[in-house]
This record gives sequence, structure tokens and C-alpha cells, in this order.
Amino acid sequence: MESSTKAWSQAGKNTQLSFYSGLGLAILSSVFIGSSFIIKKLSLLRLSRKGALRAGAGGFGYLKDWMWWLGFLTMGIGELANFAAYTVAPASLVTPLGALSVLVSAVLASKFLKETLNTLGKLGCLLCILGSIVLIIHSPKEQEVASVAELVSKLHNTYFLNYIITVVSITIIIIFYVGPRYGSRHVMVYITLCSSVGSLTVMACKGLGLSISEIVSKPSDLSYWSSSLFFLTVAVCIFIQMNYLNKALDLFNTSVVTPVYYVMFTSLVIVASAILFNEWGNMTFEDILGSICGFLTVIVAIFMLQGYRKDNYQKQSLLRSDYTSVFYT
Amino acid sequence: MESSTKAWSQAGKNTQLSFYSGLGLAILSSVFIGSSFIIKKLSLLRLSRKGALRAGAGGFGYLKDWMWWLGFLTMGIGELANFAAYTVAPASLVTPLGALSVLVSAVLASKFLKETLNTLGKLGCLLCILGSIVLIIHSPKEQEVASVAELVSKLHNTYFLNYIITVVSITIIIIFYVGPRYGSRHVMVYITLCSSVGSLTVMACKGLGLSISEIVSKPSDLSYWSSSLFFLTVAVCIFIQMNYLNKALDLFNTSVVTPVYYVMFTSLVIVASAILFNEWGNMTFEDILGSICGFLTVIVAIFMLQGYRKDNYQKQSLLRSDYTSVFYT
Repeated sequence: MESSTKAWSQAGKNTQLSFYSGLGLAILSSVFIGSSFIIKKLSLLRLSRKGALRAGAGGFGYLKDWMWWLGFLTMGIGELANFAAYTVAPASLVTPLGALSVLVSAVLASKFLKETLNTLGKLGCLLCILGSIVLIIHSPKEQEVASVAELVSKLHNTYFLNYIITVVSITIIIIFYVGPRYGSRHVMVYITLCSSVGSLTVMACKGLGLSISEIVSKPSDLSYWSSSLFFLTVAVCIFIQMNYLNKALDLFNTSVVTPVYYVMFTSLVIVASAILFNEWGNMTFEDILGSICGFLTVIVAIFMLQGYRKDNYQKQSLLRSDYTSVFYT
Repeated sequence: MESSTKAWSQAGKNTQLSFYSGLGLAILSSVFIGSSFIIKKLSLLRLSRKGALRAGAGGFGYLKDWMWWLGFLTMGIGELANFAAYTVAPASLVTPLGALSVLVSAVLASKFLKETLNTLGKLGCLLCILGSIVLIIHSPKEQEVASVAELVSKLHNTYFLNYIITVVSITIIIIFYVGPRYGSRHVMVYITLCSSVGSLTVMACKGLGLSISEIVSKPSDLSYWSSSLFFLTVAVCIFIQMNYLNKALDLFNTSVVTPVYYVMFTSLVIVASAILFNEWGNMTFEDILGSICGFLTVIVAIFMLQGYRKDNYQKQSLLRSDYTSVFYT
């Protein structure tokens, strides 16, 4: 079919440029974020060996370690590239491509955490790339929101307000009730928190990007106060996300945290942007089907990448239970 | 993108109808062919238990077994549906969908050959479906040859003549030299034979279908002699394919023969139809990329379906080596 050429010529050169910029930034951000996971894990393992109080037990010793800050910086650069990607391309394209960070972290883990990449892991890597390509082919190509005024009017959407209320309730319940009781036993607890808050981070990032570009092009009162509001939201959300992702990473193995976090985070971003931006509204049946297939392929890939690291995980969790007994008893 | 709707309206209702008929027939044929593999294997196992001379050792005892004939009939219906599919839809769509027969045979094997479908097998089934959907979305939608006269002129293409000469040489070398010496040790020997002959079967099938429809619509000398020639080619090719596929199935486990056969057969059909019909010539870069991703996903799926049956395979090959020693020593 001669589909792509036509769609491109309709959407115009600008959309094409911003789509490819967004794509490039999203891939770059995955490389940085994937590396940051491994650097942080190396730092936390090193601190454990030194006998410092673990993050999972409420310790902040990692703040004094230069390697943890290197991981933080790498993640920062990755998140910045990610932020820029969200500004120019649809969230339904940028978020699923986060899968490539799992691929990067799997390859780096096999190199630096001495985890051998077996056949299952290699097939997982291949599938991760194949699924991502299918996702890219079928993702929405155009931004659905052109101005801050339009975005603010969309924010009043009842469904989206309900979504925000749900996320805030979940966050409060987990931070004050479920987390302290079950957080160290069930991997889902802190990941649910990080993912649902993360979906708001992404929406606020898009708003912030839009506001900043309006301040540059045609400044108005609306663009100033909206940029402050979105910046505050992003800052608060990222603070919560980082804090609890750190806890999850310290309590559970990277190979468990990463895939589960990916699936939940991406799904919730797709849900949130479907509600807010109606990104899926103008897609053909064929493209929706293709996107679903690509996303499911990537999910299978990520669980295969997790599977190959199970042996290493069991080794490390034995190690962990030693430490746990030292710190908790 | 609003791709599909446009491509469809351009190509017209007839193409759309024949594409979907071809798709339906291809899926139906996979169900029958997938079942036939299992029925035949059940028959051959039963004959082994009775102590008859095995097909791999040159025996023809299976010809007296009703269950083998049921398998033959099931495969016949499947091949007929397959033939009809080739007549109305592009070979690059119909052949890769043969993967669904692997899915069917894996599910039936878990039921009738007592092979448990573990997580790897289930993920393989899911990926097989996902890859097939991506393949269907991106496959060429139109037939490239409209009349027998056009096809005959295309057959004179030097590249295609070279392809035929290569296939015939490989066939002769394997039947008379490589097969008798290495056929029972290396699974690739008979599968190379079946796949390369099979790619000619498919091309001849398309020619036969075209000739028959011309005999019905506007009979001519050309359509009569071409239909006889194509029928003869199909008959000879299928005879060779069936005979050596039987040998391969008897000498090696279904779970090894099926995936390797699928990959080789499909690849060679795509090569042959790319040379002869130029099926890939009018496709966009996006559709070619999508097709490759879908095909690779299906290949990974099929190797995963093979992987899950490894345990069962090792059990059965121990069993087989017992029989081998009985018959060969």
C-alpha cells in the first residue's frame, strides 16, 4: 500500500520533522536511562558491601556516593531527552520506546553485573527491537494539541479529572498505608505508585513543553502561569517517582522492577493520553491493531529479558535476604 | 495514518474481496495442515509400535494404515484451500501464514502427543499470532499477474530460469548423492529438498489457478496447454515434496522438522515470487519493513514453539534410537 507517502504529504514537512526528532530523542533517552539503571544498581551494591543503611530501609547513604550521582546525572540527561521527545512527538510513541532502555540495561547488565545473556535473552532483545519498529510504523504521527489554551480546556474533561483523583488517592493510600506494611514484600506496591504518578508526569511534561514554546513564540499570562503550574507538577511527581523507584530498585532486582515498571507505566501513559489528547482517535483500525501487536511483542520481549536473568536474580536475592536479616532483625 | 482506506478504495472492491478470501482460505488451510502433521505422526508412531519397516528406512507400511490416510486427506483438504488461497492472494501473504499450522500442531501435540505447553510455548503461540497480524497488515494487497500470457512472458526472465536450474540441480544432487549418505543424520538435507521444490510448487500452483480461471472465462490454446504443463509440474513437485517430507518427519521429531521447514520454505517462496511476480516491487519502505518485522517475529515464535518441545523431543529420540538399532543393525 502507498500509505506512508500520502500520510506524510498530508501532515506536512513540519510534522515529519518533529516526528523524527521525537523518535531520535526517545531512542537517545532510552540509552541514557538504560545505563543509569545499571550505574545506580552498581552504586547501591557497593554501598551494601560497605555496610551502609540501605535505601529500602530508609537510609540516604547513597547521596554521598559519586557513582550514585553519576547514575542520577545519566538518568537526568535521559529524562531531559525524554522530555524534549514528549514535547515534539505523541506520548503513545515516546513511552513504549522506553522498552529500548530495558534492552540497553540487559546488555549492560550482562557486561557489568556479570549476568550472561543466554538464547532467551538474545531472542528477547531481537523481539524488543522488532516490536518497537512495528510500534513506530503504526504510532500516531501528529500532535493532537496545538496551544496551551486548548490543553487547559482539555484538562477540564471529566474523565481526566477522575483519572487525576484516582492517581492522587492511590498515591496517598500507598505512601501512608500500603507501602509501610507491604512495600518490601510485594514488588507491585511501589511500582503501582511510580507508574500512576509517572503517567501524570508525562502529561505535565507535555504541558510544560507547550507552555515554554509559547513563552518563546507569543508570551501571554496564560503561558506564564501554566508553565509555573506544570513545572511544579513535574517537580513534585518526579520527586515522588524517584524516591519510590529507588526503594523498589533497592528492595527488588532490576530484572523484576524494570519489566513490570515498563508495562504498568506505558499502559497508564497510553490510557492517560488517550483520555486527555485523544491520540488514538484519528487512527485507522489497521494502525490501532499494528500498535497493539507491537506493544504486546515488546511486553513478551521484556518478560523474556526478565526470564533470562532469573538465575542471577535468585543468586542476588539470596544475597539480599542475608542483608535484610542484618538490617531488619 | 489514513492509509488502509485509501489503498483499498484505489485497489477496488474486487481486490479487497480476493484479498480477504485468500486470507480466510490461508488460515483454514493452516488448521487442516497443522492437524494433518499430528495425525500422520500418530499413525507413524502406531506403526512403529507394531514393528513395521519405518518410512525413514524405505518402508511403505504406512500406506496400509487408515489413520495415515486420514492425515493424508486432512493435508489434501489443507493443500486445496492453500491452492485456492494462492490463486486469489499474493504468495508473500499466503506462505508466511503457514506459521499458523505450527501453532495448530503445537496445540494439538500438547493434547494428543502428551506434550505439555509450558510458558515458552504459550509465549511462542502469542508471538506467532502477533507476527502473523503484522504480516497481514503489511503484505502486498494486489496480484501482480493478470493473465496466463503475462505469466508465460515472465517465466522467460533469466533470473527465474536460473532459479529453476538451481532448484533442479539441488534436487538431483540430494536425491541421488547427499540424501542416501547424510539424510538420516542431518535434518537440513531433506528439508532443503522439500523447501526448494516447494517454492516451485507454489509458483506452478499460481500458474495453474490462473490457467483454470482463464479456461472458464475465455478459453484459448494457451490456457489449455499451460494448464496441463502447470498441472504436471505441480503433480511432480508435490510427489517429491510429500515423499521426502515423510522421510524427514519419520527420521526427526515434528518439533524440529516443522519450524526449520517453515523458515526455509517461506523464505524460498518469497525469493521465488520476488523474482517472478515482483510482489515486493510496489511496496512502500514502511510496508517492507513491517513485513520483515512480522516475518522475523513469526520465526522467533516458531523456534520458541520448538524449544518448549525439546524435552519431549529428547524423550522421543531416545525411544527412536531404540527402534533405529532394531531396524538398522
